[in-house]
Amino acid sequence: MSAVLATPDLAAYCLETAQRVKHAAADLAVCTGAQKNGWLRASAVALRKATKEIIAANELDLAAAPGFGLTEAAIDRLRLNPKRVEEIAVGLEEVAALPDPIGEVIESTIRPNGLQILKTRVPLGVVFFIYESRPNVTADAAAICLKSGNGVILRGGKEAAHSSRAIVDVLKSCANDFGLPADALHLVETADRTAVGHFLGLPQYIDVAIPRGGESLIRRVTAEAKMPVIKHFDGNCHVYIDQFADVEIAERVVVNSKCHRLGVCNAAESLLVHSAVAAKMLPRIANALMAQGIEIRGDEATQRLTKAKPATEEDYGKEYLGPIISCKVVDSLDEAIEHINRYGSKHTDAIITGNLAAARSFTARVDSSAVMVNASTRFNDGFQFGLGAEIGISTDKFHARGPCGLKELTTYKYVCYGDGQVRE
Amino acid sequence: MSAVLATPDLAAYCLETAQRVKHAAADLAVCTGAQKNGWLRASAVALRKATKEIIAANELDLAAAPGFGLTEAAIDRLRLNPKRVEEIAVGLEEVAALPDPIGEVIESTIRPNGLQILKTRVPLGVVFFIYESRPNVTADAAAICLKSGNGVILRGGKEAAHSSRAIVDVLKSCANDFGLPADALHLVETADRTAVGHFLGLPQYIDVAIPRGGESLIRRVTAEAKMPVIKHFDGNCHVYIDQFADVEIAERVVVNSKCHRLGVCNAAESLLVHSAVAAKMLPRIANALMAQGIEIRGDEATQRLTKAKPATEEDYGKEYLGPIISCKVVDSLDEAIEHINRYGSKHTDAIITGNLAAARSFTARVDSSAVMVNASTRFNDGFQFGLGAEIGISTDKFHARGPCGLKELTTYKYVCYGDGQVRE
Repeated sequence: MSAVLATPDLAAYCLETAQRVKHAAADLAVCTGAQKNGWLRASAVALRKATKEIIAANELDLAAAPGFGLTEAAIDRLRLNPKRVEEIAVGLEEVAALPDPIGEVIESTIRPNGLQILKTRVPLGVVFFIYESRPNVTADAAAICLKSGNGVILRGGKEAAHSSRAIVDVLKSCANDFGLPADALHLVETADRTAVGHFLGLPQYIDVAIPRGGESLIRRVTAEAKMPVIKHFDGNCHVYIDQFADVEIAERVVVNSKCHRLGVCNAAESLLVHSAVAAKMLPRIANALMAQGIEIRGDEATQRLTKAKPATEEDYGKEYLGPIISCKVVDSLDEAIEHINRYGSKHTDAIITGNLAAARSFTARVDSSAVMVNASTRFNDGFQFGLGAEIGISTDKFHARGPCGLKELTTYKYVCYGDGQVRE
Repeated sequence: MSAVLATPDLAAYCLETAQRVKHAAADLAVCTGAQKNGWLRASAVALRKATKEIIAANELDLAAAPGFGLTEAAIDRLRLNPKRVEEIAVGLEEVAALPDPIGEVIESTIRPNGLQILKTRVPLGVVFFIYESRPNVTADAAAICLKSGNGVILRGGKEAAHSSRAIVDVLKSCANDFGLPADALHLVETADRTAVGHFLGLPQYIDVAIPRGGESLIRRVTAEAKMPVIKHFDGNCHVYIDQFADVEIAERVVVNSKCHRLGVCNAAESLLVHSAVAAKMLPRIANALMAQGIEIRGDEATQRLTKAKPATEEDYGKEYLGPIISCKVVDSLDEAIEHINRYGSKHTDAIITGNLAAARSFTARVDSSAVMVNASTRFNDGFQFGLGAEIGISTDKFHARGPCGLKELTTYKYVCYGDGQVRE
């Protein structure tokens, strides 16, 4: 397909694609785990065999990268080599090894009239996945969607177009051998951004949209989508050091939450410290952060105790995604909770405390997808939580909250067995 | 509050209301089951005591009813008497007797690093419930929402305004005694329909909208809501009589599915019969339906075997909510499944069969919230499924599907306990 299509053709292409994936998804929904796992494992083998071709396709992307204005770091993330292709193949095998979520009877009951009610896990249907990321995400997303019995329409960044095409071609080529409908996996090829809008307007064929990338992309998808969206806009995550905190744990968790990776959604962006321990703990923790090159922006109390620059109101609402952290001294646990619920992103927030009542109150009242006690915010992640896979993190409360793995791409239906029951 | 407010005042009222309910909901979320149940039971006692006042308020509604153009049947549904007030009180006690959904650890794991992950059930937050119905729905909805820890904004029909006000006043008056925030329960008093639009534009304070009533109301709410909606538009439910059906069961289930109550979403609106048994079964079942005053609209094969009128294409997509059923003779199970997935509402569909493979294929492939085997479609209902309560039925796949009781008004958060864990 050419990279540029006239609008009517583009609309027709999107409609026809969505219908075809939906139709294939209905067949995929009743395929067995053995079929899906067989396909994933065969795809891993085929990817390894196709390493040369995939790297050749990747070289086309790399050659075009400067023209797209990619930074050196972005080009490095785009680059495939034999080791990275091997990692992609291993990723498919890891998804194959996960339990099949489909068909699980989540709850069941036999009613007094003998009617058996089985609340049964089934796929959502068709996922529209929009991402800006590295070629390995193409393989990961395909594996997670198909393993959970869903058709998927992949809309990756144009920067990785050739690499993604090569990977998807390999995966599709392995579907037939296991009786799987290859049409359930579709890579959108046009670079025309209006295609995204067309797909987002087809709720009758697409059951969920999952955008992953910058906040502007996610806001655009959320505003336009006529189907539900699994998403988070940002991650203004907090660590609160309670008056009953252990200073060693506090320092370790704050430094890890902030510094382990700066540009990720579960990195800490704000530090709150109880006034009763601020003089004792804050200078030490500030030094540890500054030793890692982190700039601190704090309120007056923080400035008195550290070399922090002044924080503005805006700083407390900010996701820096870089070497800056905001800091505030609070007079109570309640003030910390209120601050987090006001300025935070409902993503991940942590308390450092040895006090049971404080831990219970914080975890009950902080309204976030994950609340950590004496642990790094960086643990809010599908792999770290043991889901075995992750297609995104949700800060919404509806359907899926927190890391989304295989189960979060499913729904349920009620299957009821009787022998002639009627309502009296 | 007066029934008419200027637009800026109305917008401010809606915003202020939503903020106040959201704030109260945060407190309600951490109240105990004993508090919530105490409040429900005390409300039941108080309602019984206030029977005279409630009936007096109801008489104001009844007096105004002809002016609203209500039918005799609608006026009868609106009417309260001591028996109906007693039923409302018993309804509150029944919700009090249900298990508290909040705080349940749905799944848990201890990761290899010692981090304990508790996937914990919590309330959604604030429910906006829009309904056109009888005064008892006001009490039921309040009970379900508050028991599940959610604040609720009730927007009932103007026809029941005085009755609903009297009931809500009683419920609110009992909240303080149990330390519950009375502000978590709010009845919208203005008759101005634009208030609904204002509330639907406040996703930061309202977590879910639940419309219950006619399809046009539900379509309007779904189109305008900036927050998720739990809903079904309609219920074009099918009964399919397989070639391996028992004719006694087939007749009983078809008649019950169609005739038990005509105007409800889980009533059958379409009958499919396998051609191998049509000659034997269809005349008998058609006679049984016609004996109940049901008009049959069928394809040519149906017309040959019964006194059916001709069915148009439109008939197969129709929810009659009345004494009509469409009928079609199909040549295979697959044709029946395809027909249902094409024309149905994804609500409730039934197969009558003694054949295991047919039952398994039908339940796996029919893409509806509930699929019945040898049982009436009328069982797709929160009470019939044993949920103990119901605020609506969802035909969507996201979050909640099928009957929605207490659990369907909850979400989860991850609560993680560690002792200093950080990511390596």
